[in-house]
Formats: sequence, C-alpha cells, structure tokens
Amino acid sequence: MTLSDRVEGALARIALRDSALGAWAHVDTAGARQQARRADDAAPLRGLLLGVKDIIDVGGLPCGVGSPIFRERHAFADAAIVARLKALGAIVLGKTVTTAFAFLDPAATRNPHDLSRSPGGSSSGSAAAVADRHVDAALATQTAGSIARPAAFCGIVGYKPTHGLFGLAGVAASAPTLDTVGWMSRDIATTCRIHAALTGEPPSRPASRLGSCRTVHWERADEAMRDAFLLCAAALGAAEVASPPAALDVLHATIMRFEMTRDLATEWLQHRELLPQSLREFLSGAAPTDDAYRAARSARNGFDFDGLFGASQVLVLPSAAGEAVAFGSTGDPAFNRFVTLLGCPSVTLPFARGLGGLPLGLQLIARPHEDAMLLATAAIVEQAIRDDGSWPSGITQAALG
Amino acid sequence: MTLSDRVEGALARIALRDSALGAWAHVDTAGARQQARRADDAAPLRGLLLGVKDIIDVGGLPCGVGSPIFRERHAFADAAIVARLKALGAIVLGKTVTTAFAFLDPAATRNPHDLSRSPGGSSSGSAAAVADRHVDAALATQTAGSIARPAAFCGIVGYKPTHGLFGLAGVAASAPTLDTVGWMSRDIATTCRIHAALTGEPPSRPASRLGSCRTVHWERADEAMRDAFLLCAAALGAAEVASPPAALDVLHATIMRFEMTRDLATEWLQHRELLPQSLREFLSGAAPTDDAYRAARSARNGFDFDGLFGASQVLVLPSAAGEAVAFGSTGDPAFNRFVTLLGCPSVTLPFARGLGGLPLGLQLIARPHEDAMLLATAAIVEQAIRDDGSWPSGITQAALG
Repeated sequence: MTLSDRVEGALARIALRDSALGAWAHVDTAGARQQARRADDAAPLRGLLLGVKDIIDVGGLPCGVGSPIFRERHAFADAAIVARLKALGAIVLGKTVTTAFAFLDPAATRNPHDLSRSPGGSSSGSAAAVADRHVDAALATQTAGSIARPAAFCGIVGYKPTHGLFGLAGVAASAPTLDTVGWMSRDIATTCRIHAALTGEPPSRPASRLGSCRTVHWERADEAMRDAFLLCAAALGAAEVASPPAALDVLHATIMRFEMTRDLATEWLQHRELLPQSLREFLSGAAPTDDAYRAARSARNGFDFDGLFGASQVLVLPSAAGEAVAFGSTGDPAFNRFVTLLGCPSVTLPFARGLGGLPLGLQLIARPHEDAMLLATAAIVEQAIRDDGSWPSGITQAALG
Repeated sequence: MTLSDRVEGALARIALRDSALGAWAHVDTAGARQQARRADDAAPLRGLLLGVKDIIDVGGLPCGVGSPIFRERHAFADAAIVARLKALGAIVLGKTVTTAFAFLDPAATRNPHDLSRSPGGSSSGSAAAVADRHVDAALATQTAGSIARPAAFCGIVGYKPTHGLFGLAGVAASAPTLDTVGWMSRDIATTCRIHAALTGEPPSRPASRLGSCRTVHWERADEAMRDAFLLCAAALGAAEVASPPAALDVLHATIMRFEMTRDLATEWLQHRELLPQSLREFLSGAAPTDDAYRAARSARNGFDFDGLFGASQVLVLPSAAGEAVAFGSTGDPAFNRFVTLLGCPSVTLPFARGLGGLPLGLQLIARPHEDAMLLATAAIVEQAIRDDGSWPSGITQAALG
C-alpha cells in the first residue's frame, strides 16, 4: 500500500466515522494528500499519520482552541513540535477537538468504545481519533490530566513527557509551568518510535525495580480499578510506596489558578460571555497572591523525588478513577495532578476492563528526564499485561531488570 | 488638551521623526484615534500612550517579530498584557521595532540622542520611541539584557519585572524560562503608575539598605561608567557586596540555548536561509543535553539569594558597559544576564553621562517578587541622582530607610 493509499484510507475512515464520533475540528484533506505525495522515503517517521490537538498551531490551518472566540483564527506557522514531526516525515491529517481552552467543560466528542460515554478531556479528539484508528498518533497536551485521562478512557497509550522536554512555542497557554505537549498512539512501539526520532536518544534500559502508589485519592477509584490495579501491581512485583501528600494538589491548584488568570486575561476581559461555564466560574475566583504563587513554585522545586520513588525507578498508579464516565463530563484528573505538578514523565497503558466492559488505564511515572527509561519499561509492561486482567505470572522484577 | 489631541500630537511627532529614527514597525493611526474616542474617563491608565514591541501580539495588527518570515503575520488577539493595559485605559499607538526574534542582530532603529549610535536591543524601537517622546511608555521583553541595555543607551527608565509576574501569552517565545515582559518610560512615576494599575498593590516602603555589586564583568565597563558608578554607589551609601559567580552566565547560556533551539524549531527547519546571521550561527551550534539543561535549571532554582543580597534589599550595578555603542551592534548584555537568569526584578535609571555625552544607566535589582519595594526605592534614587553626576550629599541610607 502506498503512502497516498494510506492517507486515502484514513480520510475515508474519518468520513465514515466522524459524524458520530466528533473527533475532528478540521480535516486537511488537500494538505494531507500533498504531504503524502512529497514524502521523503528516508524520513524516520515516514508515513506516520498524525492528528494535532486544536490548541497547537499547524501553519495555514484553523486553530480554534475549542472556543467560538477563536473560530476564525488561522495559524500562521507550525508550532515547534509540529514542524519537527513534519520534518521527520509525519503527515498531519488535521486538527482534533479540544475542550475549550483545554479546560474541563466537555467537548462534543464521543468515546469510540461507547458513544454514550466521554472520551475524557481535554485532549478528547486526539484520544478518540487514535482509538478509532483514524490516525497512528495524535499530539495532545496536559495541564492537569488531559493526556492520561482520555488515553485511559479510550484504551490507548498516552505519553506526557517531562515538563519542558518539548516546548510550547505555538501552543495556546493555560498554565505554562504545568502545560506539557505529548502524544497518544495505540501501542507503545509507536510512542517510542516518535520519542526516539525527536530526541535521537538510543534505546534505554528499563527500570530494574517498580513501585506501586495508591495515591491519596485511592478511595475515589472504583472497585474494578482497585482490584485490577492491585492484581497488576502484584504481578509486576511493584512494592507499595507511601503516597505523596495531598498538599501537592494544593500547589497544583495554586499554580494553575495563578497562571490561567494571568494568561487568559484577554479572553476574560474581552470575551467573558463566550467562555464556557466551568472556565468562567474558575476565572471569576480570586487569583492566588503573588506570595502564594511564589511559595507554591518554591515548594514544587524543592520536592524530594527520592522520598517518593525510594529504590524504584518507575511507579505504577491508576490513570483515572475507573472506566470512561458518561458523556457530559470529562472525568476527574485527581490521579494526574501531582504528576503534572512535579513534571514527571507519565505513560498510560490500557491494562484491564471495568464493569461496563470499557478500558482501564495504568499510569507509569518516573523522575523528570527519565523519559527513555520510562518508555523502555512501559514497552515491557505492555507486552506482559493483558486487557482482560490475566497477567502471566512471569512478570516480576526479574523480567524487568 | 483632549485625549484625541494628545493622540494627534503623538502621531504628528512620529510622522516627523520616525523616518530618521526607525522606531516603529507599524503605526495604527486609525486604531489609536478610535481608542481615544472611546476612552473611559475613569480608567486608571486613561490616556497612557503605549508602544508595543513587535514580538507581542496586538489583535488585528501585524506582528512581524522583526523577521521577513513573519512579515505577513497578523495577530488574531491581544497578548494578555496588552489586553490588561487596554482595559486599564492605555492607548496602543502601534508596534515598535524589535531585532529579529529578539536576538542580537541589530535592527534599523537609531539612537535618538545620536543617530550614529545604537539604541540597544532587542527592544530597540520601544526604547527609541519612548526616549524621543513618541509615547509615554512601551512594552518590551528581556531574555538576556533586552530591556536594561536599550533603556540605558536611550537614557530612559526600563523595568524588567520578576520573571513570571506578567505572563507570556501572546508573546513570541525565545526562552520562556528567561523571557520576561516589562516596559519603559521616561520617568519612574509612569512606570510605578503602570505597575500599580496592573497589580493593584498599594505603595511599598523602599529599601532600608542598598548594596553595590560590580559583578565579574567590572573590567568590561568603560572608565566613565566605573567612575560614575562608584561615585553614585558611595553617594547612595551602598556597601559593596561580593559579585555573583561567573558560573551564572554559563547557566544562563545553557538554558537560553536549550530553549531557543527547542522553541525556534519551526524557523530553523523551515526558514533557515531567512534567519539573520548571529541567530543562524547560534542555532547551528550543538544544543545542550537534556542533562545539562536539567542541571542548569536545578542550580538556578537553588540559588542562594541571601548570599548575594546579604542585609541589602536592593543592589545597584551598571546597566551596561557604558554609553550607547555605534550603530551596527546592540551592545553587550553581560551586566544583565545573571539578573534575568535569577528572575530578579530590575529597574534601569539614567544616572550620568559618558565621555561622548550620552546617557549611562544604573541598574537596581531586588530579590524575586520584591517589585513594589524595588520600584519605591527606584523612585527615591531617581529623585536624588542627577544625570550630570553631582549627587547631593543627602543620599544616604538614612534618606532611604
């Protein structure tokens, strides 16, 4: 099959499926065909079909940020991450639906496993398009849990890199101290291929020791998640570590509220009536003081990673409280906020199914800048786990080390 | 004089002067007139005439980033800081010339004190437009020394806030860990008025103790600067503190190079031949490794401010090596890099004249988030110093305390 055939196949699938799913904000039919014709045979990511979350600029395409305020906005140039992926051979199919300003108000996208459910948010369209096999991968962003949660709800692989590893040039800001560009795919091999092409890093050794972290939000996880998680952690030989303090969520909230108030000033001052309800309520609250913000950043910068990770290089924790919630909410980022705050790389893998038969997500995290090691570990874990929960007994520390 | 009269006066002055000076990338004649007609009498910054550096978005106006690559780009929306200043009553006259991508390659702007000299960079047009009385104030940005140096060369007040105090939404990125939005004016009172309107902070007490810092670059300062600085520091009762280590400049370089390589990927990959020479050479160098970047950020986050400031709340240091350099270079940011690295607020005041009769700049810095105290201190210092170097003997710690 030629690359042009693959692009035509993807466009046909989008045409067939997307009226029900609503994953795409804009499909660039002509541009995708042109990219396929001009593809360089030697490019490392040749033929990778890519969706781009609609808060990330693609030159010449609309970039609506999920809001009527920006409906007419067209990006002048590619975001840095888009330019890099194009130069590596990826073909951009178009822009995937985001919740407005990547906040909590749900978008119209449906979960491809069950149209009555949410795909999660805020990277709703990226997760749905990947899960429904429209594209090989999709760019996404996370400020609280906007990669891990939709990846979990849609049963795909989500990767939130170390904060700052890939830049935010050409990405609409929410809270830049937290905002992180990453991507989703259906298997870890595709995610690793993209990471290797972007960084040029050689393959890394996986972790020799895993830990398991229930987090202070354990009681929010539903029974299916709790059972599957404990079984999986045991099969992985992951010894439980102490949960990081709930205070981290307060730091996250302080930084997010300070920076969103600061960086969404234009929308608040000039277009308040067009903001969705949750965001309008959020921005109408009192912003943290400068002192509170400074203290939150300072506490974050001084976080004791060794105290959390102990002798483990990778921790496993739930990606979300359970399977996809009903359409009308994007779910709860409680299991992701402290990970984003700390800038840790995070991979979500589908690892079991909930009572409704929908996917559950397992989150693997590492210390900042240990992305290559985390991805190598996730590749081994993905091989070993099965989405029906019957892990082979061979998954032990020895297998990982 | 009505506000419309003031706008007409500014437009006439720009028309008269700017063909020789080259401070403006775009003058929004119709927009400025419309803003004047619609002005709210009660707005705190009513009638403040403002220029905006051409890397900062003003909705509907061109934003060319000083580069032919972006010549046709128009901003869809106001940058957050622009929206806030407009809402407070400021009137945007247009976009001021920036060096390309706010880097070192000089722009065509001339120094209004001497057309054969540079106004400094990268905020070249903002400094020249303010110094030449086209506007009351102009927004600027600093990644190394791009506010302090042009303010010094043009004999005006430059204010680089604490990093992050005002956000970068709608500002073209160079190195976001360093990039800082600030502004310039002809007197400290105007700068304080803008700061108070934006932050709502009440006036602060000034510093009770000043220190003086030669920095490790002291030998780069010319004789006129060294003499004037030492005389001024003595008159201010500023006891000398130890210079921060030269290693800070290495941290600055590591962070700036890592982030510029990351965030200017589109320009490098798609428009390399259109980049100016210094920037092209800079970006063609090897980027620091991820480990080096992490280490630099970590060292910066752990900086011992008390070790630098000691018992002083404010330090004075040169803003630049001397008076404005010849046209064809933007000068040397050696006296500014570590200040930007550390996120310290910085105010530049004209305080003396060099051998060529051009202004010299005095830099006042404080610990991060001590902006209000720094500005209050700068107001007292401005009252006391005279640009001929004959400070009254009354300027002592007692006067400040």
